[in-house]
Amino acid sequence: MGDALQRLRAIIADVSALGTAEAILSWDQETYMPPGGAEARARHRAALARLRHELFTAPEVGELLEQLREREGTDPDPEDLDAQYIRRARIHYERSTKLPARLVQELAHATSLAKDAWRAARQASDFSQFAPHLERLVALTIEKAEHLGYREHIYDALLDLYEPGMKTAEVERVFAGLKERLVPLVQQVAEAPQVDDGFLKEHFDPQAQWDFGMDVLRAIGFDLHRGRQDQSAHPFTTSFSHGDVRITTRIFPNDWASGFFSTLHEAGHALHAQGIPAELYDTPLVWGKSLGISESQSRLWENVVGRSRGFWEFWLPRLVQRFPGPLAGVDLDRFYRAINRVERTFIRTDADELTYNLHIFVRFDLERLLVTRQLDVRDLPGAWNAKMQEYLGIVPRNDAEGVLQDIHWSMGAIGYFPTYTLGNVLSVQYYEQAVREHPEIPDEIRHGKFDTLRIWTNQRIHRWGAIFNAAELTQRVTGGPLDSGPYIRYLEEKYREIYRL
Amino acid sequence: MGDALQRLRAIIADVSALGTAEAILSWDQETYMPPGGAEARARHRAALARLRHELFTAPEVGELLEQLREREGTDPDPEDLDAQYIRRARIHYERSTKLPARLVQELAHATSLAKDAWRAARQASDFSQFAPHLERLVALTIEKAEHLGYREHIYDALLDLYEPGMKTAEVERVFAGLKERLVPLVQQVAEAPQVDDGFLKEHFDPQAQWDFGMDVLRAIGFDLHRGRQDQSAHPFTTSFSHGDVRITTRIFPNDWASGFFSTLHEAGHALHAQGIPAELYDTPLVWGKSLGISESQSRLWENVVGRSRGFWEFWLPRLVQRFPGPLAGVDLDRFYRAINRVERTFIRTDADELTYNLHIFVRFDLERLLVTRQLDVRDLPGAWNAKMQEYLGIVPRNDAEGVLQDIHWSMGAIGYFPTYTLGNVLSVQYYEQAVREHPEIPDEIRHGKFDTLRIWTNQRIHRWGAIFNAAELTQRVTGGPLDSGPYIRYLEEKYREIYRL
Repeated sequence: MGDALQRLRAIIADVSALGTAEAILSWDQETYMPPGGAEARARHRAALARLRHELFTAPEVGELLEQLREREGTDPDPEDLDAQYIRRARIHYERSTKLPARLVQELAHATSLAKDAWRAARQASDFSQFAPHLERLVALTIEKAEHLGYREHIYDALLDLYEPGMKTAEVERVFAGLKERLVPLVQQVAEAPQVDDGFLKEHFDPQAQWDFGMDVLRAIGFDLHRGRQDQSAHPFTTSFSHGDVRITTRIFPNDWASGFFSTLHEAGHALHAQGIPAELYDTPLVWGKSLGISESQSRLWENVVGRSRGFWEFWLPRLVQRFPGPLAGVDLDRFYRAINRVERTFIRTDADELTYNLHIFVRFDLERLLVTRQLDVRDLPGAWNAKMQEYLGIVPRNDAEGVLQDIHWSMGAIGYFPTYTLGNVLSVQYYEQAVREHPEIPDEIRHGKFDTLRIWTNQRIHRWGAIFNAAELTQRVTGGPLDSGPYIRYLEEKYREIYRL
Repeated sequence: MGDALQRLRAIIADVSALGTAEAILSWDQETYMPPGGAEARARHRAALARLRHELFTAPEVGELLEQLREREGTDPDPEDLDAQYIRRARIHYERSTKLPARLVQELAHATSLAKDAWRAARQASDFSQFAPHLERLVALTIEKAEHLGYREHIYDALLDLYEPGMKTAEVERVFAGLKERLVPLVQQVAEAPQVDDGFLKEHFDPQAQWDFGMDVLRAIGFDLHRGRQDQSAHPFTTSFSHGDVRITTRIFPNDWASGFFSTLHEAGHALHAQGIPAELYDTPLVWGKSLGISESQSRLWENVVGRSRGFWEFWLPRLVQRFPGPLAGVDLDRFYRAINRVERTFIRTDADELTYNLHIFVRFDLERLLVTRQLDVRDLPGAWNAKMQEYLGIVPRNDAEGVLQDIHWSMGAIGYFPTYTLGNVLSVQYYEQAVREHPEIPDEIRHGKFDTLRIWTNQRIHRWGAIFNAAELTQRVTGGPLDSGPYIRYLEEKYREIYRL
């Protein structure tokens, strides 16, 4: 048995090396690759992905896992890393071998075509160009879900890919609680006098933006010996090892807040990745971690900390020093309200903290209808607009700012969107737990100190890698289930004060 | 047979994708990787290299090559790319399978230890720390050469790894001709009044150095749509595809020439890589190309063009605009002599165009003695110093500036050094041929135009990838064999004029 585990580890180390190489090629593509490299890069990445899949789905892996069934046990102790290793290797092996090779190839081919079609359709703001591709992807996704299997709802099989163990019914329960309170809250805010954030749209020197972002990254504890920041068109976080975690940001001369909060968002992901122990890397103990947990860490730093008044008590004077022009005479209250301005807009990725969730409700509703064949792809634009009207009270003027705005569906990623709002919910649950255990945290933040919070998240959340799913970790950290209550209270208190409701 | 070739191409495409991934990981490590990433990176690179080796040396590849023997023929037409493909795949397959797995592993292990030991020994300037490692490497290298096989000289087997088809006796013949004329020439120059280059050691703003380098890169035709330049501790060129060729440079505030001529050197390699047709990439038709041909391209731009008077007729006024401080009042003659200052120094990589070859003679002599067991590793420092005295007339004061200066031997690369001087020889042979065919080239260079020369090198040299070795290509391009005559005449004319001999 020791031999079987050793052999499994050797194979999986190679699988992981190939996966890391893919990630490095991808990072390079987004940051520094010259345009002429695109064509060959696509071929090289596809080859690595195929070799990785072949290596991991070899019959030998299945045989080794059979030999290791006893060692794994039925409900392994979270601290028994060998058993956890086998358990998670098995989950991924079964998932990888459940899908027929033909379906995997068809999906790869269809998404490759769909991504190009989506880009062209969005450019032209014409859903009909994308519709046949999406129809094909929905059909293939349904087939995929049937192969993966589910008990209650076909959407469970898809959700599980992004949020392990989570059920559609549970998301519906959490979202129902949120909708009941957030939809009216957004309505009330929309009717209140709007906050002025005009000064945030003035010119902010790009180099000074970069330097201020680096100051904050260092202060919150992003370890630059084990990481770096670069620029890319779409900010992202990627980790190649415990010692090499990278984020990207983008800088707009006339929209300082966009770049800065991107940096903080990715920094939250990066602290998570840097907090995962070195020995978990290159093992299934980091594969397929809960996206809700991941998002809880990015949202914690971006919103709960980074858009709090206390955070800016310390940082606003430093920001004013960097940008004395646009920020002349801006006091803490005016600044705080400006960075928390709520506005009902069409594009999810530009949405504020509060309305963001309403965009997720739209997508979650439509995805379930699509995979249960209750909604035809042809009718999607109309359904989209109706849902926007229902939740946000606004209707996109065209497909580009409506149904075509997100890349996810073109990549075949159906079941992904709800994890964003689950992450928002968890960010507040975890933060409040941290403060219960360490009441000094808010005061530390007001003084530009973040160690207590960061170390708490390291010890309670990051260290587990992918060992716990969102429900298990939340139980362990807070002593209770996933609960939208704290998040709702947080939003209501914050935005009632800002909008003087 | 068509099927066999198709299958071989599919396997080799994967082998190449793994090799390219290794190259990208290596580029990243030298340019942007945070220090904390080193440990995992070494593991990931080793895994990719092993997987690549396993894929390429699989018995199936041998069987496919057997089936393709007839298609290959005995002396395939250079334009018959399928036959050339098979021929070069076979050469590499045989080389990869000739070495026992045990020896490959021992070499990998020994070089890994030796590189660390070499770094420490050089730091301490203590050869005895490195000696046992080098002894082991020499023994393993001799074993490797015996497995690879040779007819006349054991060194032939090693030389062939870097300079395909080249024989030790041929290098000895070429080097004898060079020694006879260059050793006395260096002696004469050393006795002549020295050239003043003090102004080159003044402060040159790093950003302006970078910008000027980019101007020249663009002017000579480095395609930035299909390439880029970054900074690294040791300048190098790497190519991931026809569309993605990268160079690095380093910038010293008080040594402008070092960085600039590094840029030009690597640009020569990069023009070569960008000139290889896209369809040759990811095939054995680019594997193991002659290092002498490669070096001829870097030296062509660095020295033959970049250190010529004509080049600076155009560029000096532009350089003065960038650096009016240090270059105030420096005229073309003074500048031209300064960038061609000859000085007998200890470190090969800092050597000028003329003395550089003498450093190579030292290493070539010692390498042959080591692999024929005529020189014991223990006696190497003394032998090194004696050779330095013989060729350059100077003796290093310690091991760090003597026998320990180069990384090559610690990597097991014995047989590599001669290719540097072969490249120098070829750079002048090819340039003179280009001028014979296009007499307008020198005048174009004086006017900052480089298209005729670059396109000539594309069409006559680059387009062939690794299809021809140095002797074959030289015959094809110049109509004659490798000949040190033009290079000797070039150096004698140039340095007699500069030093007024």
